[in-house]
Amino acid sequence: MNLEAFCKTEGRFGIINSEEAGVIDGINDALLWGAMDYLRKEGFTWVEVPIMTKITGACENVDTLYAVDHFGQEAYLAQTGQLYLEAKIPLHNKLWTIITSSRAEDQADERHLNQFQLIELEHAGRLGDVLGHIEGTMKAMMRSALRERGNDLEELGRYEEMVGWVEEKFGCISYREAVDVLDGSAHAIRFGDDFSSEHEQYLVQEMGRKPLFITHFPKAIKFFNMRENRNDPQIVNSADLVMPYSGESAGAAEREDDHDRLVTRLKESPMFRVLQTRGKTLDDFADYLEMVKKNPVLHSGCGIGFNRISQSVLGSKDIQTSTNYPIQCNVLY
Amino acid sequence: MNLEAFCKTEGRFGIINSEEAGVIDGINDALLWGAMDYLRKEGFTWVEVPIMTKITGACENVDTLYAVDHFGQEAYLAQTGQLYLEAKIPLHNKLWTIITSSRAEDQADERHLNQFQLIELEHAGRLGDVLGHIEGTMKAMMRSALRERGNDLEELGRYEEMVGWVEEKFGCISYREAVDVLDGSAHAIRFGDDFSSEHEQYLVQEMGRKPLFITHFPKAIKFFNMRENRNDPQIVNSADLVMPYSGESAGAAEREDDHDRLVTRLKESPMFRVLQTRGKTLDDFADYLEMVKKNPVLHSGCGIGFNRISQSVLGSKDIQTSTNYPIQCNVLY
Repeated sequence: MNLEAFCKTEGRFGIINSEEAGVIDGINDALLWGAMDYLRKEGFTWVEVPIMTKITGACENVDTLYAVDHFGQEAYLAQTGQLYLEAKIPLHNKLWTIITSSRAEDQADERHLNQFQLIELEHAGRLGDVLGHIEGTMKAMMRSALRERGNDLEELGRYEEMVGWVEEKFGCISYREAVDVLDGSAHAIRFGDDFSSEHEQYLVQEMGRKPLFITHFPKAIKFFNMRENRNDPQIVNSADLVMPYSGESAGAAEREDDHDRLVTRLKESPMFRVLQTRGKTLDDFADYLEMVKKNPVLHSGCGIGFNRISQSVLGSKDIQTSTNYPIQCNVLY
Repeated sequence: MNLEAFCKTEGRFGIINSEEAGVIDGINDALLWGAMDYLRKEGFTWVEVPIMTKITGACENVDTLYAVDHFGQEAYLAQTGQLYLEAKIPLHNKLWTIITSSRAEDQADERHLNQFQLIELEHAGRLGDVLGHIEGTMKAMMRSALRERGNDLEELGRYEEMVGWVEEKFGCISYREAVDVLDGSAHAIRFGDDFSSEHEQYLVQEMGRKPLFITHFPKAIKFFNMRENRNDPQIVNSADLVMPYSGESAGAAEREDDHDRLVTRLKESPMFRVLQTRGKTLDDFADYLEMVKKNPVLHSGCGIGFNRISQSVLGSKDIQTSTNYPIQCNVLY
């Protein structure tokens, strides 16, 4: 079975009813139910979050915002519902949502979709807890696909590797260790650099060719509310999950629970400097900052990019394979 | 327990962690899982649909479109994923999705949210089949709430009425019968008029104060692809589900499977006339029309407005009660 026809946006209405489309849909359906079953079993409460928001729903990457005019107010298509889930942490121990996340990426390539399904969790607890929930969610997704769509995975030549990923513990190295692994290779980087997709795939190969957590990234390159490591203030208690084939598929972190540190981090963040040039101020984050001040519950959370998981399970080089209607900068349906 | 504080948008961050918010969240969570369980049991395949689309994702009501600039192309926030699900009917017998539907309503009132969760189904079969699936989904939602949140429903004074709705068959009258029921009341209308919320609640009261299907609406006031009744071309094989408290909560119809009739209907629709003034042509519907031409599978579908169901289960006069972050024209979060 060859998914090559799904590696482009052209001619989609001609292929979305093919046998291959049926296989992709079936695997996606099984992956979704796997995630759902895990979240229900673990007692996460579903909460609806807005997908047209102030800047607080869009601050994952301010360079890729879709703006919308909302009756004279400047609104954005949400990239994440994170802060809206976090705002309810004082009430619920465990929360989840699923949204269509929007990113105005101007590159039509094999790595980016301008809209994709994002499963988000927030819960009381620390980095170790959220990594457990990511691994639990992901393995439940893959087990569901193996159980419901085993023949299709065989047909795609993906069954055996999936079984391996489900049975073994995911890999886990720190950012500093990853820098050491890359050192001396053609992919060497310095502390403070972010990983490219080549770095990610090199690390995955070196670390056993299975899902790999990379933890404790440099503070300077991560979101303002990721909690600073109290023993090593250069890093935050964060992690990315890197998947074979698709690369970064989930991002996770403890959230800063110290109000004063949080305000300082926000003010110093490159994101906030960009926002200031667009007329935004601390006031735009007032509701969130107030919540942390009043209810400093130590909590953690993550966003799991459904389509990156789907791509990896399909063993595809191209994220467009993961969906019937892949939106990129040059296409709409 | 009083939900009055949730009947407005002001001060939301002050109430979303209250005991009442916990009750609302818990009931919504149970309602969602109820729907999910039904759809899984019935063998519906989940498919992702785009929420930023050409005009074909936005044509539910062209007067309430949010426009987005997508790299120079005019895009819209989807009101429905219906046509994108329908396009896959040749492959799957039963499909579903859930999207955040966007409507640029300029009235901040108790009946409208500018974004809400919409559960959509499409399946091979006729109007009777889709009404069965709506009733099945809704009862599964309410049973789940009764089972998981029975104490909260008691507290709200909603338990007994919910049990009644679940145990009895939903009401069902035709549009023509509804006109007769209204005749002689203070709410009389003529064939061809649409119902206001007052009409809806009067009919619900007259028909046993429980969920009520109204079927076979006049063709002239309904979406272009609702299938014309072959015995009575003035009407289409459609239905609305009207709920006590919240009114119209689901819309359903057979989809026109005769390509030539469909093209004629599209051309004659008031919607298309509006679109023409904005430079749209038949070409904007080409992919959909081609699908119907190639694969004229008789199918039906519906959209279930999650927040209207939630409002009705809560027994609230105001749809803002159904969510933590109700978006109206005068507010963003």
